[in-house]
Amino acid sequence: MKSTVYYDNASTSYPKFESFYNETMSLYKECGINFSRNSSDKSKDARFIKESLIKNIKKIFSTKNEVILNSSATFSLNEIILGLDYSNIKTIYISPFEHNSVYRVIKKIVKEKNIDLKILKFNEFNLDFENMQLQFMSQKPDLIICNHASNVFGNILPVEKIFGEGKKYNAVTILDATQTGGVLDFSEISISSDFIVFAGHKNLYGPSGIGGYIYNKKVPLIPLLYGGTGINSEDEDMPEELPERFEAGSPNILGIIGLKLSTDELLKIGIENIKNKKQENLKKLYDLLDEYSYDLKIVSDRENNAGVISIEANDYSPQELENLFNDEGIITRRGLHCAPLAHKHMGTDKNGTLRLSVGYFNDEQDLNKLTEVLESIF
Amino acid sequence: MKSTVYYDNASTSYPKFESFYNETMSLYKECGINFSRNSSDKSKDARFIKESLIKNIKKIFSTKNEVILNSSATFSLNEIILGLDYSNIKTIYISPFEHNSVYRVIKKIVKEKNIDLKILKFNEFNLDFENMQLQFMSQKPDLIICNHASNVFGNILPVEKIFGEGKKYNAVTILDATQTGGVLDFSEISISSDFIVFAGHKNLYGPSGIGGYIYNKKVPLIPLLYGGTGINSEDEDMPEELPERFEAGSPNILGIIGLKLSTDELLKIGIENIKNKKQENLKKLYDLLDEYSYDLKIVSDRENNAGVISIEANDYSPQELENLFNDEGIITRRGLHCAPLAHKHMGTDKNGTLRLSVGYFNDEQDLNKLTEVLESIF
Repeated sequence: MKSTVYYDNASTSYPKFESFYNETMSLYKECGINFSRNSSDKSKDARFIKESLIKNIKKIFSTKNEVILNSSATFSLNEIILGLDYSNIKTIYISPFEHNSVYRVIKKIVKEKNIDLKILKFNEFNLDFENMQLQFMSQKPDLIICNHASNVFGNILPVEKIFGEGKKYNAVTILDATQTGGVLDFSEISISSDFIVFAGHKNLYGPSGIGGYIYNKKVPLIPLLYGGTGINSEDEDMPEELPERFEAGSPNILGIIGLKLSTDELLKIGIENIKNKKQENLKKLYDLLDEYSYDLKIVSDRENNAGVISIEANDYSPQELENLFNDEGIITRRGLHCAPLAHKHMGTDKNGTLRLSVGYFNDEQDLNKLTEVLESIF
Repeated sequence: MKSTVYYDNASTSYPKFESFYNETMSLYKECGINFSRNSSDKSKDARFIKESLIKNIKKIFSTKNEVILNSSATFSLNEIILGLDYSNIKTIYISPFEHNSVYRVIKKIVKEKNIDLKILKFNEFNLDFENMQLQFMSQKPDLIICNHASNVFGNILPVEKIFGEGKKYNAVTILDATQTGGVLDFSEISISSDFIVFAGHKNLYGPSGIGGYIYNKKVPLIPLLYGGTGINSEDEDMPEELPERFEAGSPNILGIIGLKLSTDELLKIGIENIKNKKQENLKKLYDLLDEYSYDLKIVSDRENNAGVISIEANDYSPQELENLFNDEGIITRRGLHCAPLAHKHMGTDKNGTLRLSVGYFNDEQDLNKLTEVLESIF
């Protein structure tokens, strides 16, 4: 019997695939030494694993662009946003659903560089497209940053439309795909995104400590980290070569191995199948919560949702409700979810919400346990 | 029979402890979800593991100061060097043995802020103490950055003397302990260091992808990364609380678990015992290489060495020698080792050197294999 019911997959996916748990450490034991640091066979093995991972990432995000690996999506967003050339950037547009990993970095840049920050107009989860067109006409977008789906409410944003319109003005575009990489189809959006940011430990089912971004190489970018890369050591500046320019320091071989194995499995199952399973789990969870409409308000929409349901209870604070669930072994997450902007937009910023987020591995047993606990509470 | 002889421990230690290989993944499978992100029991487990790791780090570095965890020593050095307040820093002193993870960052800052960069005078591996005193008197040190031991030559630097003298002028002091954490005694140097930087994957025998620094909290520091921390989400700036202020993004739970297990084992064996074993391995390696003094020049000193021997061969380039060793399954590392400054200081910058670096796990079998290969080459 499973002892834990896990509905916090938007924080990190859990569990991971069995092949990830079973094979990562034995591969690390076999070839866990630095590549590009010598020409040994073991080192070649690690390099081969990295190359396989890069191929997997390119498949998942439907891209032929450069893949940069680093420690996290947060690192990636900082590197990109802080590393752009702001001499021609006067106006930045973001969605009202941005996470603090975007919002705090942007607020820092806006203050430092005296830039205009505009938030796209959404009516609840719906983009006001005409308003955006008018906004862009009156103040052209130089940089647009948008998450693909909200980590708080799950709503999938119309990023193709937003970036498509932005590209008419040659805007630089950054897609935060933290919640969607491994679930959605990227074939259209990858064309109009200069950067796509991903996390290894969410829907790619890899370990914590590895993430990265896809870079079309057209927009000049300065690295966030300076240090050793194993090439051009005599140069006082970072090398121009990619990905080395953005990968200073010893590589995270353990993370690379883990993410390679998890994305192997992901592609074997098929993204479409994973998406369908997740959607099925979402639908069942939504239906169940919907039965308690007298006690619970579901803030998230049922449709066009990447797998996250935010709720408010009439008689309990999100903290109290989280505790009640937690006492019964059901893991959720209360509060602002590091995205105060999104909560403010939806009017849930005072107390936050309780968030339940599904993954590929949720099952009937989870729903039964949740039903039981909901019955006991309400 | 071991198939690989590994003399590249200065890049990353290999192998790791058996308990690390055997227990890391099962613990990650058990409690690998984000802490500080909800109040579940699993989350509490991960938090408990992190607290144990912090205790271990404090023991290893003989400190009661704050421990900040992040992805690497390179990240730490960038965060510290780029995050200082330079309004009162006019002169920076570094040793001639600094790695590019210091040197490239410093060159960037020096260019941007118009600061004087001075390199301390060493005669080969010996600090010219009087010269330093005179230098400090004529141009006071505002910031001193020094590695504890060179990654190229292994020489242990007299950091206590350098920082001790620097503190008479209230210099900010940054110790790069990447090569020494887990081997040397820090009880004296930790007192005069404002920051001590460590890597998880070298002499702490943990996995790649985790590192950090020890921070005495007296010197103001701006974070390198902005993003979610799980606390004070409504604030547009990063929180003041430590370590959250410097730990934006999802934590590397897998790395935390791995480093906790490896440092448990390290402390169980005892740092003094590990040091002695490493010194014994170093002595034997040095003695063996010394037998080939007709063909090989040993650039490193035998004494006061943390475990690294750089050599030059009369008839082979470092690349050729590395290949000859590699063909026989002996892993070493040729070139500039991401430390061109150190090579320039010792006059080995034209071709670099071949570096052999020992670890706790080197044994007689390694030496026998190396002897055999040396006999076949020379």
